[in-house]
Amino acid sequence: MVRARSGTTEETPTTSVGAPGVGRRTFLTGGAGAVAGAAATWLGTRAAADPAAPAPTPEDAAGTATVPWRGEHQAGVVTAPQAFGTFLAMDLADDVDRDALVRLMRVWTDDVDRLTTGRGGLSDTEPELAEVPARLTVTLGLGPGFFTAADLEAQRPAWLGPLPAFGVDRLEDRWSGGDLVLQICADDPITVAHAVRLLTKEARSFASVRWVQQGFRNAPGTTPSGQTMRNLFGQVDGTTNPRTGTDDALIWAGGDGVPAWLEGGTTMVVRRIAMDVDRWDELDRTGREIVVGRDLDTGAPLTGGAEHDEVDLEATNELGFPVIDIASHVRRSRTSDPTQRILRRAYNYDVPPKPGRLSSSGLIFVAFQADLEHQFIPLQRRLDEMDLLNEWTAPIGSAVFAVPGGVRTEGEYLAQRLLEG
Amino acid sequence: MVRARSGTTEETPTTSVGAPGVGRRTFLTGGAGAVAGAAATWLGTRAAADPAAPAPTPEDAAGTATVPWRGEHQAGVVTAPQAFGTFLAMDLADDVDRDALVRLMRVWTDDVDRLTTGRGGLSDTEPELAEVPARLTVTLGLGPGFFTAADLEAQRPAWLGPLPAFGVDRLEDRWSGGDLVLQICADDPITVAHAVRLLTKEARSFASVRWVQQGFRNAPGTTPSGQTMRNLFGQVDGTTNPRTGTDDALIWAGGDGVPAWLEGGTTMVVRRIAMDVDRWDELDRTGREIVVGRDLDTGAPLTGGAEHDEVDLEATNELGFPVIDIASHVRRSRTSDPTQRILRRAYNYDVPPKPGRLSSSGLIFVAFQADLEHQFIPLQRRLDEMDLLNEWTAPIGSAVFAVPGGVRTEGEYLAQRLLEG
Repeated sequence: MVRARSGTTEETPTTSVGAPGVGRRTFLTGGAGAVAGAAATWLGTRAAADPAAPAPTPEDAAGTATVPWRGEHQAGVVTAPQAFGTFLAMDLADDVDRDALVRLMRVWTDDVDRLTTGRGGLSDTEPELAEVPARLTVTLGLGPGFFTAADLEAQRPAWLGPLPAFGVDRLEDRWSGGDLVLQICADDPITVAHAVRLLTKEARSFASVRWVQQGFRNAPGTTPSGQTMRNLFGQVDGTTNPRTGTDDALIWAGGDGVPAWLEGGTTMVVRRIAMDVDRWDELDRTGREIVVGRDLDTGAPLTGGAEHDEVDLEATNELGFPVIDIASHVRRSRTSDPTQRILRRAYNYDVPPKPGRLSSSGLIFVAFQADLEHQFIPLQRRLDEMDLLNEWTAPIGSAVFAVPGGVRTEGEYLAQRLLEG
Repeated sequence: MVRARSGTTEETPTTSVGAPGVGRRTFLTGGAGAVAGAAATWLGTRAAADPAAPAPTPEDAAGTATVPWRGEHQAGVVTAPQAFGTFLAMDLADDVDRDALVRLMRVWTDDVDRLTTGRGGLSDTEPELAEVPARLTVTLGLGPGFFTAADLEAQRPAWLGPLPAFGVDRLEDRWSGGDLVLQICADDPITVAHAVRLLTKEARSFASVRWVQQGFRNAPGTTPSGQTMRNLFGQVDGTTNPRTGTDDALIWAGGDGVPAWLEGGTTMVVRRIAMDVDRWDELDRTGREIVVGRDLDTGAPLTGGAEHDEVDLEATNELGFPVIDIASHVRRSRTSDPTQRILRRAYNYDVPPKPGRLSSSGLIFVAFQADLEHQFIPLQRRLDEMDLLNEWTAPIGSAVFAVPGGVRTEGEYLAQRLLEG
């Protein structure tokens, strides 16, 4: 079992995980070279005349920004969510063994190094499409089949497999499972499409595509910093996320019982949640707010305040009934145990509807947590038992992955501490 | 037959249609109120101290910008292409008559007015999702079935129907035809998803979804102004587009033989072009440049210069062979008749691949032209006869629509001059 690590000192200052503020910081550090140069050119003498003035953002700033990918952790977990995310699960070919996996990891590591810094891959036939890194991150997760192929069953964590069956599940095979996953996120959809293409192509003699889920949030520069994403029900989504710095132990695996390859890594759940927008439409605004427990406009708890204020679960109305319904989503997803929180990093999906339907949309629900059994599963059990929102949502896909720690040094490759450990 | 109009004076200055320069202008005029307000707040006293300095773009500028939708023309044609475009074809229900179409057009007109200015529709149950207009435009096109339902067959243009069959066609019914189309474009994918949802919902008692095509270009703020889009082959796409001001007669229908409702309108072709990226990958860089006739990196003609320089079709190499291959795409798509040019406004598509395939991507090829028979069809005939690119591309969907003129006055509704003409 993976235990949450505590007491780790991180170099990252305390910022809200998942808030665009992190992106701004990443942008100012990671993409500093390219950006500073462009700003200077664009501003000419004015910047020189008033060095204290905030530099205007150059017009392609969202494209030139990069996220450092080497370090104790993989990028793409506490990275402020980029606008676009593609989740690509693959199944390994029958003849793939540990040596083959080492080759695949070496190739992908080189690709990640190049693509996230705006350079085409070695076998890239469209390197022009790599020129806009747009905060690209590539995050690798391993499914159970990876350990089987590598003949490393002894290293496979006990929790790595399908989640327990939940009553709400309407799982389809075509959105579930996978021997490995790549989470590929960037602020430009062409960057994502090109990275997916290259990484898939590089893997073609090792693995085939099992499923692909394509998601989106607001485009870069369309909403103010710090604004929480809305899902396609119109709800703010991700308000109570753990924060880097103070909540690292909830995010990153480490400590007793955690294998070396998972140190600095995490656990990842990807669930495809169909949202029945057509039936949700029939519910009036008051009804919706009762279901969620929050004001739809501001995202504030129905007990008052602002979006990030605490929900008052004890408050009652003039009749003595709880203001926050006993079965509301905000109450059921809340825990009195602060170590049970998870890091949500969801994307909307919206695909062409089936004949006779108006829409087919929902959420690619992505959660990272240090300890799947202690954090994600109790939360999901509570929501499964009772959550008014279950009436309008249904999980149609589910997969669990182990996210290895980051690539710490040059020459190292992804998952090396597992494959050579 | 629709005749290209000439000698029309437009209020729009000469700007390259399809270049982000137009967007900047639209942004500065259309979204001026919101943007100026935000910039003033953000800058505080500095802007006041140096009024001549260009105002930095506020961080949500791409979200608050709007495109005026009323006028002689519908928006979304000469509007600089937004980052995201969804093309939604619908089939009318059997019992829909002219009165019903008037009701539908009135509802949609009100929706367009509200959504493009950042307000929810009257029946909108998620008005929060309308708060980011992000240069939203909604463009209506009419298919042959619209005229049948309206009992206005006499008004139906002779050219409005399937294109002539071309040898390259591999058309599928599920991407072809339609009684009407909505082109819904914005710089934010959530804005597009919400607008599609509302407009589809409003129409549900009148029409059902026939096909939906979802496309993308670079996200806002990721590439410098004036940069032409690259498609997923890595080619620059849309270099030689007509320009507003000088080339209006190529874009907008008008003059002799054009019915009043089509004055200020245009003709629209939507073709889904599958691009075989897997086989294109097998071709080396030189081969690709010969196929296209342009440098892949810069988009410049192989005869030299920069992207927007003229191709020298007469140039020969040291062996006396043409530098621009006789069958190259740039040569075959070029015409000696400048009145045959079309306005391309394409979007990339990239959807999950079929089992056993690496990718499924291509281009939603969208073309506007004053006169379909004089402009689009001769061009397509030339490309059908001979174009090296045909080896790697195949049209799998095709539809033609008549785009009525714009809504000129308050109280007017879309296509009113047709339905009450």
